[in-house]
Amino acid sequence: MSRIDLNSDLGESFGPWKMGMDAEVMESVCSANVACGFHAGDAEVMIKTVKAAKAAGVAVGAHPGHPDLQGFGRRTMAVTPDEAYAYTLYQIGALQAVCAAQGVPLEHVKAHGALYNQAAKDLALAKAIARATKDAGGDLILLGLANSLFEQAAAEEGVLYAAEAFADRGYMDDGSLVPRSKPGAFVHDLKEAGGRMVRLVKEGVIRSAEGKDIHLTAHSICLHGDNPAAVEMARHIRKALEENGVEVRKIREVLKG
Amino acid sequence: MSRIDLNSDLGESFGPWKMGMDAEVMESVCSANVACGFHAGDAEVMIKTVKAAKAAGVAVGAHPGHPDLQGFGRRTMAVTPDEAYAYTLYQIGALQAVCAAQGVPLEHVKAHGALYNQAAKDLALAKAIARATKDAGGDLILLGLANSLFEQAAAEEGVLYAAEAFADRGYMDDGSLVPRSKPGAFVHDLKEAGGRMVRLVKEGVIRSAEGKDIHLTAHSICLHGDNPAAVEMARHIRKALEENGVEVRKIREVLKG
Amino acid sequence: MSRIDLNSDLGESFGPWKMGMDAEVMESVCSANVACGFHAGDAEVMIKTVKAAKAAGVAVGAHPGHPDLQGFGRRTMAVTPDEAYAYTLYQIGALQAVCAAQGVPLEHVKAHGALYNQAAKDLALAKAIARATKDAGGDLILLGLANSLFEQAAAEEGVLYAAEAFADRGYMDDGSLVPRSKPGAFVHDLKEAGGRMVRLVKEGVIRSAEGKDIHLTAHSICLHGDNPAAVEMARHIRKALEENGVEVRKIREVLKG
Amino acid sequence: MSRIDLNSDLGESFGPWKMGMDAEVMESVCSANVACGFHAGDAEVMIKTVKAAKAAGVAVGAHPGHPDLQGFGRRTMAVTPDEAYAYTLYQIGALQAVCAAQGVPLEHVKAHGALYNQAAKDLALAKAIARATKDAGGDLILLGLANSLFEQAAAEEGVLYAAEAFADRGYMDDGSLVPRSKPGAFVHDLKEAGGRMVRLVKEGVIRSAEGKDIHLTAHSICLHGDNPAAVEMARHIRKALEENGVEVRKIREVLKG
Repeated sequence: MSRIDLNSDLGESFGPWKMGMDAEVMESVCSANVACGFHAGDAEVMIKTVKAAKAAGVAVGAHPGHPDLQGFGRRTMAVTPDEAYAYTLYQIGALQAVCAAQGVPLEHVKAHGALYNQAAKDLALAKAIARATKDAGGDLILLGLANSLFEQAAAEEGVLYAAEAFADRGYMDDGSLVPRSKPGAFVHDLKEAGGRMVRLVKEGVIRSAEGKDIHLTAHSICLHGDNPAAVEMARHIRKALEENGVEVRKIREVLKG
Repeated sequence: MSRIDLNSDLGESFGPWKMGMDAEVMESVCSANVACGFHAGDAEVMIKTVKAAKAAGVAVGAHPGHPDLQGFGRRTMAVTPDEAYAYTLYQIGALQAVCAAQGVPLEHVKAHGALYNQAAKDLALAKAIARATKDAGGDLILLGLANSLFEQAAAEEGVLYAAEAFADRGYMDDGSLVPRSKPGAFVHDLKEAGGRMVRLVKEGVIRSAEGKDIHLTAHSICLHGDNPAAVEMARHIRKALEENGVEVRKIREVLKG
Repeated sequence: MSRIDLNSDLGESFGPWKMGMDAEVMESVCSANVACGFHAGDAEVMIKTVKAAKAAGVAVGAHPGHPDLQGFGRRTMAVTPDEAYAYTLYQIGALQAVCAAQGVPLEHVKAHGALYNQAAKDLALAKAIARATKDAGGDLILLGLANSLFEQAAAEEGVLYAAEAFADRGYMDDGSLVPRSKPGAFVHDLKEAGGRMVRLVKEGVIRSAEGKDIHLTAHSICLHGDNPAAVEMARHIRKALEENGVEVRKIREVLKG
Repeated sequence: MSRIDLNSDLGESFGPWKMGMDAEVMESVCSANVACGFHAGDAEVMIKTVKAAKAAGVAVGAHPGHPDLQGFGRRTMAVTPDEAYAYTLYQIGALQAVCAAQGVPLEHVKAHGALYNQAAKDLALAKAIARATKDAGGDLILLGLANSLFEQAAAEEGVLYAAEAFADRGYMDDGSLVPRSKPGAFVHDLKEAGGRMVRLVKEGVIRSAEGKDIHLTAHSICLHGDNPAAVEMARHIRKALEENGVEVRKIREVLKG
């Protein structure tokens, strides 16, 4: 029987500013990537988010980003591997303490935004993130983009690794995501997205934007919770998977097979 | 035989800006209070500082402060106990991960600047800091001002506690520090400072600015390393203590008696 | 014939985070207090807000706050008068350039949150803000709490001054606001609030929470736009004033009498 | 008779952290590029620096940078032209108010670090900076790298423009700087640097690292003040220029010819 994890980026409020429908999307996912204060989130938001994840039975992961609050960590920044390592380690640790206080384990690490996109194509950065994931202790899983350098980085650093796919994104023939500015970048249709994800999990195959069936190994599917349509998509994907006999489980259980 | 710890605030550089004679003062102290990025320090400075402390055999503690980089955490801020708890927990965690990466234990927590001064007189704040110290895990010691509310806070929260005295500061009859703006606030004379600390450790007594012998229990003495005179004072205090048969040991060993 | 200005705090979004119903409340007010990046707002939000104010015919004022984004400038901070002067001058200047780029004058300065509340009771801080308002150039008006030290500060520094009242707040017998934690702090009833403001403008009198008629001189009334009820209140206050023969005009015109 | 301006980046301290030998280097230069709080500097440092420049008879310019304090604005950041425009306008305005308070004009704008380097090769960014320089008002001069896109950007936006050369840097045959990582990137020899600058000003020619004489138009020479050797270089360059009949004048006078 097939298994998959569902993850979402959560805890992205900051100070007086609210963002995201965390409570709603937590009903559909198994893993929360919690912002750690650099690109979003703050110490109080982190505590609140970990409490909510605990209550919902959702696994907690760290979602470290660039030190760029105003740009929400989405702007490419030329950080060195040493800087990426230090920033990632710092953010993981901050969330580990919050988890310790709530009596839940920190399970995984997934880089955010530009840090994620840069590292996916830059082995030195990906290795820096993998090494921080390892050095923080606690046997954390590195969650990265399928078909990216994160996998090699995790292997070289000796870190548990899980790959994620995107339910609402189109793929190129080489397994990379269709750039956001290009046609076919997004999948908006619920039924289509659901069908694609069921096939991905059961067959390990997804149809590219160019019409070719490509192989993709994914242990988790990234869903969104920043608006009602995204929440609806999240609900639908989970339902489609379960109706087709896929077991929705946390990353660590998926990795165990 | 008498024992005392010597501590100093270190790792207070930030980005391209340097501060403090860390290497020099580490030769005299046993415990380093490492800034955690809110009032000073950054992730890379923290790593560098923990590495240096490890190499010097100096115990590492967290030195959480207010989120006020420009003011160096020295400006009173009306944070709530919930905010103080969250900020302290976050900063401890960040440093714990850095320590884990270097294979050294985090030993203690000492609040910085205005947070320290406010909590010394505000039980709710002191308890928030004590609770964060406990919740972060790792059996951390709370280091606080002698004769302040930190002791009660630690007791109520069930946290190991150590009190610190200041070698270069004058004391009031009630055991509080002479305010910086008043005569008698500072002790600049090396010999006088050394003599006062030896007496404090061996007899538990210090002469107040008003001329009275007062009782003070201290497990650690705070020294400074921000300028050559401070480093000289640190060296002298350690020498005076050792020459008078005092054992200079890390906080945890002092607490064991 | 009586005249009054209506002002509101606007431009309080930051980076990816939205706050406030700026477009809606701009239909009711004459003066916008625009956040300047320290407690809220950022350079792009400031440009957008000044453009919107220009399009709506609303006068632009600076709304400088403490350097405390996470706390939204609402936490008391022990800044010195020199710091308050420097921070206020900096923030005014940033908005002046944005106004220059849009071809609209900057009209006034109103401190935000804790800075406003602290200065209302601390002459040195109020004078620092008044001096920055003067030194920035452009003949700016200082807008402050009625019956506070802002008036004296403006007079001593030689700055144009306007006082504001709050439509939704209760007043003490001495003309100060009822603290937010006390009964009578807020006026929620639209009709009551409208009646109070009409009487204030026409008679210079407001009924205190303790039931006494007190004299209050106000050149502007502060309205809110952070939620639908506040926007409704703003609309109602303006309507009530106009229906009772009060001319709603920008601060400078109100000062001219 | 030949004329040239000498400029230096100043006011780069932040909060409790000091940087640069501002007082010393102000004895050699005519123009100060003052950090505006994003990559370095803060409101109080800006006031102190403008006061010192006024006292030394040095012209004040704005030195806007990326919002990256920790990285000192030296890390490439993928800001959009709209963001660059907004950040530059904001920072110029903040310094304009400080200048207004001190009764000195703001004279020029020179981007800092990565923003400078990115814009030198990216016309849209260079135009955004030029437009902000114009929109801020006050007839400001844009100061940019000789042989870069800043010149075209200034022309297209209708802004006064001045080009700068570097006394301590080597040049490629195409007039660009030798990358810092390559041989020939730096000129350390005082006599050689002085001779190169005299020739540049009097003949408009500089010898490239590859040994070719290339034409370069410069209205200003950038000097440094971050260490004693840099200050010595600054002194020497000024002396060499003056001894060879070059008039050292502020940018605006150089532009007038």
